[in-house]
Amino acid sequence: MPHQPLIFTPIHTLPLIEPGQDLGEIIHQALLDCAITLENGDILVITQKIVSKAEGRLVNLSTVKPSQRALEVATITQKDPRLVELILSESNAIIRTRENTLIVEHKLGFICANAGIDHSNVQGKWGNEEDWYLLLPQDPNASALKIRQSVAETEHVNVGVMIIDSHGRAWRKGTVGISIGFSGVPGIVDMRGKEDLFHYHLKVTQIAAADELAASASLVMGQADELIPLVHVRGFPYPLSDAPFQEVLREKKDDLFR
Amino acid sequence: MPHQPLIFTPIHTLPLIEPGQDLGEIIHQALLDCAITLENGDILVITQKIVSKAEGRLVNLSTVKPSQRALEVATITQKDPRLVELILSESNAIIRTRENTLIVEHKLGFICANAGIDHSNVQGKWGNEEDWYLLLPQDPNASALKIRQSVAETEHVNVGVMIIDSHGRAWRKGTVGISIGFSGVPGIVDMRGKEDLFHYHLKVTQIAAADELAASASLVMGQADELIPLVHVRGFPYPLSDAPFQEVLREKKDDLFR
Repeated sequence: MPHQPLIFTPIHTLPLIEPGQDLGEIIHQALLDCAITLENGDILVITQKIVSKAEGRLVNLSTVKPSQRALEVATITQKDPRLVELILSESNAIIRTRENTLIVEHKLGFICANAGIDHSNVQGKWGNEEDWYLLLPQDPNASALKIRQSVAETEHVNVGVMIIDSHGRAWRKGTVGISIGFSGVPGIVDMRGKEDLFHYHLKVTQIAAADELAASASLVMGQADELIPLVHVRGFPYPLSDAPFQEVLREKKDDLFR
Repeated sequence: MPHQPLIFTPIHTLPLIEPGQDLGEIIHQALLDCAITLENGDILVITQKIVSKAEGRLVNLSTVKPSQRALEVATITQKDPRLVELILSESNAIIRTRENTLIVEHKLGFICANAGIDHSNVQGKWGNEEDWYLLLPQDPNASALKIRQSVAETEHVNVGVMIIDSHGRAWRKGTVGISIGFSGVPGIVDMRGKEDLFHYHLKVTQIAAADELAASASLVMGQADELIPLVHVRGFPYPLSDAPFQEVLREKKDDLFR
């Protein structure tokens, strides 16, 4: 599909999401309200926040009792020990600590700050508002697949679904949108073996297609109060794929930056 | 500008670029040929390759004499010592070495593999085709500014211009499009102090807007032989900015992953 534009359309017609709600249904309605008819090959990019909220992943810090290890890490990072406990309980390993910084390998396999636990745009049902935190979805790939299947049933199309978050990076400032799970979206597009303009074989080019898409979808969503938790993508230049999310993660033994 | 789509249009109407050519003029013609009329706030994303080619940044390895240090690094990395010499001459420091891997801090300040020196889609005028390599532009910010000014003169609009490359990443496989220089594009959009939905102040969110844009522009360009060195972007959700590129780079003292 060469030369067609890649179009990110912000979908602003979703309600505030409550635990237990059916995201597939809500997304179906939101697309109707935006007059968007899905086509095969389209991709729906969803912020982690509404998936986590629908799945009831809210935790109030007053229910968390910090372990000895959490207390130690809290001293280094100057974070609330209860929050540190929550972060460690969502992590496989600590990667770096410093004042105000706690970078971990999340249980889901990727490396990020604070295990992706979030405090903005979060509000619980009781207690101190400041104490509510939102964990990442338990299994974002399963969440994406479920939404994809729901959309396939109601709209009779094969689309990709990707759940994204914003992560900091080594070496550069600022956060970028990045995939934390998907269904139907190719994590890596392997160009090795293809020829360049002058018939020289490309040696090492593997394109992180899902993350490239996640970055601009995140740009369209914004971060503060834009109320755009969903972005519709048309014109993705590669075929949908059912390769597992795991393929975007570099194995520990091959990673020079842990 | 809320709720408007973000649109990446691949521009396929550029000729193969030769050293000494005026990119501003070529881009002007290519946009005409694609029937695109620039508007204020649009962004032109350009692959590093055509900028480097226009600037004559081709080097033939047969002209390079490896230093002792290059020979040592070549032994570790199993790369051609002349190529290693070229990489080191473009770098401030070596960050990591391993077989097949040489990650450096480029003279331009960012960290990347092989100092961004490229071999695909490169062809020289003489000698062995395999020996031609392409360095990054000498000063991508200046290159971007020059193209921006040329466009402003001919089309009487204020657009952003960004030059991108594809870089590997810590922790994750695959390359993503990333800015190596720009003019008019905000590298970082600072959301700190803004309020979220529930009037909780966002604490740390700085959005790497230029790199988020670069990622999807790169997706549209492809990597192998697509002949799309330029992408036109409409609907970028932030105002253009004249902050320097340098602001996207994390200072060494703040970087936990060197």
